[in-house]
Amino acid sequence: MTSVDSRVGAFGELPHVFSEAFSVLTFERAAALAVQCLTRHLDSNDRRGVTLQEPADLIAQARALMSSDPHGDFDEQRFTHIIDLYLRTGIQVHTTGYMGRQFSSVAPAAGVFDMVSAMAPQPASFYEAGQLANVADSIMAQEFAALLGWAPNQFDMVATSGGALGNLTALLAARNRFVPQAWTEGLQSRSDGRRLGIAVGADSHYSVSRAAGVLGIGENCVVRLPLDDQRRIRVHDAVTVIDQAARDGIDIFCLVASAGTTATGSIDPLDELADLASERGLWLHVDGAHSASFLVSERLRPRLRGIERADSFILDAHKTLFVPAACTLLFYREALSSQLAFEQVASYVFDEPYSEASRMESGGKNLECTKRPSIVNLWLLWSMYGRQLLASKLETLVDLTDMAHGLISAQADFRVLHTPQSNILCFQYAPAGGTVWDRDSLQSALRDKVRSRGNFLISKADVGDERALRLVMMNHEITEPDVRALLDEIREAAREIGVE
Amino acid sequence: MTSVDSRVGAFGELPHVFSEAFSVLTFERAAALAVQCLTRHLDSNDRRGVTLQEPADLIAQARALMSSDPHGDFDEQRFTHIIDLYLRTGIQVHTTGYMGRQFSSVAPAAGVFDMVSAMAPQPASFYEAGQLANVADSIMAQEFAALLGWAPNQFDMVATSGGALGNLTALLAARNRFVPQAWTEGLQSRSDGRRLGIAVGADSHYSVSRAAGVLGIGENCVVRLPLDDQRRIRVHDAVTVIDQAARDGIDIFCLVASAGTTATGSIDPLDELADLASERGLWLHVDGAHSASFLVSERLRPRLRGIERADSFILDAHKTLFVPAACTLLFYREALSSQLAFEQVASYVFDEPYSEASRMESGGKNLECTKRPSIVNLWLLWSMYGRQLLASKLETLVDLTDMAHGLISAQADFRVLHTPQSNILCFQYAPAGGTVWDRDSLQSALRDKVRSRGNFLISKADVGDERALRLVMMNHEITEPDVRALLDEIREAAREIGVE
Repeated sequence: MTSVDSRVGAFGELPHVFSEAFSVLTFERAAALAVQCLTRHLDSNDRRGVTLQEPADLIAQARALMSSDPHGDFDEQRFTHIIDLYLRTGIQVHTTGYMGRQFSSVAPAAGVFDMVSAMAPQPASFYEAGQLANVADSIMAQEFAALLGWAPNQFDMVATSGGALGNLTALLAARNRFVPQAWTEGLQSRSDGRRLGIAVGADSHYSVSRAAGVLGIGENCVVRLPLDDQRRIRVHDAVTVIDQAARDGIDIFCLVASAGTTATGSIDPLDELADLASERGLWLHVDGAHSASFLVSERLRPRLRGIERADSFILDAHKTLFVPAACTLLFYREALSSQLAFEQVASYVFDEPYSEASRMESGGKNLECTKRPSIVNLWLLWSMYGRQLLASKLETLVDLTDMAHGLISAQADFRVLHTPQSNILCFQYAPAGGTVWDRDSLQSALRDKVRSRGNFLISKADVGDERALRLVMMNHEITEPDVRALLDEIREAAREIGVE
Repeated sequence: MTSVDSRVGAFGELPHVFSEAFSVLTFERAAALAVQCLTRHLDSNDRRGVTLQEPADLIAQARALMSSDPHGDFDEQRFTHIIDLYLRTGIQVHTTGYMGRQFSSVAPAAGVFDMVSAMAPQPASFYEAGQLANVADSIMAQEFAALLGWAPNQFDMVATSGGALGNLTALLAARNRFVPQAWTEGLQSRSDGRRLGIAVGADSHYSVSRAAGVLGIGENCVVRLPLDDQRRIRVHDAVTVIDQAARDGIDIFCLVASAGTTATGSIDPLDELADLASERGLWLHVDGAHSASFLVSERLRPRLRGIERADSFILDAHKTLFVPAACTLLFYREALSSQLAFEQVASYVFDEPYSEASRMESGGKNLECTKRPSIVNLWLLWSMYGRQLLASKLETLVDLTDMAHGLISAQADFRVLHTPQSNILCFQYAPAGGTVWDRDSLQSALRDKVRSRGNFLISKADVGDERALRLVMMNHEITEPDVRALLDEIREAAREIGVE
């Protein structure tokens, strides 16, 4: 890349459009504008939810920003307007009105690094192309292994792009271990009349049963395990359900636990489930997308007791380690397990024979061919601040959720549905006198009304057979007055929709 | 997010570590440093390859950059060193020595926007959370539909994270169309003794046969179709192979063509393959990760003739539309096809009943739950510059490759293996007098020697039963003198490894 107007192409002067669009000068101008827009956006303490627009209206606004001049130069005003439109129409994760999703502001050093990896791209599946990403994989794996009590080099960690892909990859490895010919022969040739199945907690994430659909196992071979009143798998009942499945012709080969669940943040009894998996010869996978990050905190780590005995687990660093999406870490307790998911080589991407460098690269172990070096964002934060920053933030979020639990429990017109096990809380508005609304419709209506008022964003979830309001604490700046204001907002919304 | 030192947490003063790490001031400082580092890195015209280091050495350097102070403040020097280490150790895609991979510099406006979407994250699978991304999906879909001659609203486009995932999703939709019970019952219950299979060109990308392994179809049910001397599927022979597979008990339900292949950039005869697919009732999927972007150019579009008749095709905008990874567009000719891949709802993510807004969102149609709004990067470039910028760049890259083809063809000691159909060229060093090296080992050795000399990066590929050197033109600043210098570099490398 060269300075503007200084380059000559293969066939004389390149089209003028290049000399601006791809120049270093344009990079500097664009970066300066983006920093200005972001600073203005982030430097605000308002409570804000989300301002929903009709798709047709927003399409019209976006269309109006599209240049009609196909040879246009870099247009600072247009660029600024596009950034502002993006910022204005999205969820406002940096404000104290945002309590709605498992999705967070990122630490600025990591967010800025994403621009570096965008402008100087390195596909991280291959050592040759992105050496530091592969080295960061290795270092982060060792750091977590130490927290898990795992011996060096006896485990493996694969960085991948999102929890859904991480869960899919782990279940694929499990499937291929139990049906060694599945990779080459598929599941089509099984003819003993029996079927493979997966056992999951009733509240497991939709990506888990989806994975059964994708992998040729079939969603009807996903057996759901009953939960206790805190929405955790009941281990004793799990045994019964797994035995019944076997009598019905479904051989459970994999047990999927959650830490924590999407609806309530519940963490299954991992240690007891590891006992069960061990007794029955099952693969134990833990979907720790949301809460396996508790590993970084001395105080919170005990909540995950037993995770170190799982065959595999995932952790979404883009959820609760505050780096940009997507950055999922998939851990295998046994190093060779990571080879099970995919079995393939291609001459133009994988070097043979294996060198020390090619042994490090992940291309044979993740689905992606082009993979962003997102792991560098995590290693960078860890290097700059140590894991204590991440631990402190998680502990603060958990404390905030406990505060909200205490506060909401004390209200006569609200009802909490569980004791928080991480940073998620489900609750209901339930005025003492009753209303004409049925309980579940009321929660949905309140959620929508709160959203449309634009000051707060909360979500809804089904907890057993009840519809609930749901808050997720992702912003450490939230305070008790913010939670009180949310409750008043819900009461106001109730009045607006006619609840007395 | 607030300014440094101005915030009080739920329980009084937050730990000091927060007030710096998550502050707007830190964002501004980090951004200024990153811009400095990137400007220095990008503003250079050197020819550079890649400087490979032993993993152990690089791990030691990276470890040395990790803070031993767990409560450290933002350390400008450490941050700069980390960025510089990343930039120094990666592929140098912005230099004229880089001719090695299907991986490109990005247009700065799009690269900078990646920082915006990192600092103000919006999960793009859901309209509520990222309205502009969903709107950009819709606009980009319409723009491409016009180029394809598709009627509005009769097709669908899903943005997803990478070509491997795009191919997997398309094949999943195809599988589910041909085995309607596959999603719920899996492929385990098929008992007629016959098996489903996929037919692919012999040079198709490894992600395609991998997808068969993942989906429970089995790699042994992937039938490879013979190629002509330009590495394109021979349609007449394809018919024979598909018929033979049926006699062997494998019912081909899906035909996967390439535009273009990874090894040589070859584009299969899509129009004839569409005839074949239509006659036989097959799903035609085109892996256009690399070259389906030719759609944006009037001059190059005819090379894709017939792609508009495919049931599905993918296009990696992060390869050849010059936006950051990962940004894959998966097109379905029939709108309802996009519903086939996944079949599921979850109360906390999908709104019901369907509103106009929820109809736009992609969560039910892509594997990702958290998806980066990468499509906005593409819409932004299109809005700023029109598609002419992208068309001009692609045309320039194709012209450069033709120039290299002519130049290398004219050398007595080189041999080209095909006529380029996109921006990829495979060739061999073949000195007239012969050498003690066998032909294939020589190409591999030369490729490694060129890499270790550090001035150029080229790759290798297998073309039929021959090993080849491979160049991919991704940098429009490359000139004829650069290609001549590469040939001299290969000759010098040959001398170094003892070839006379």
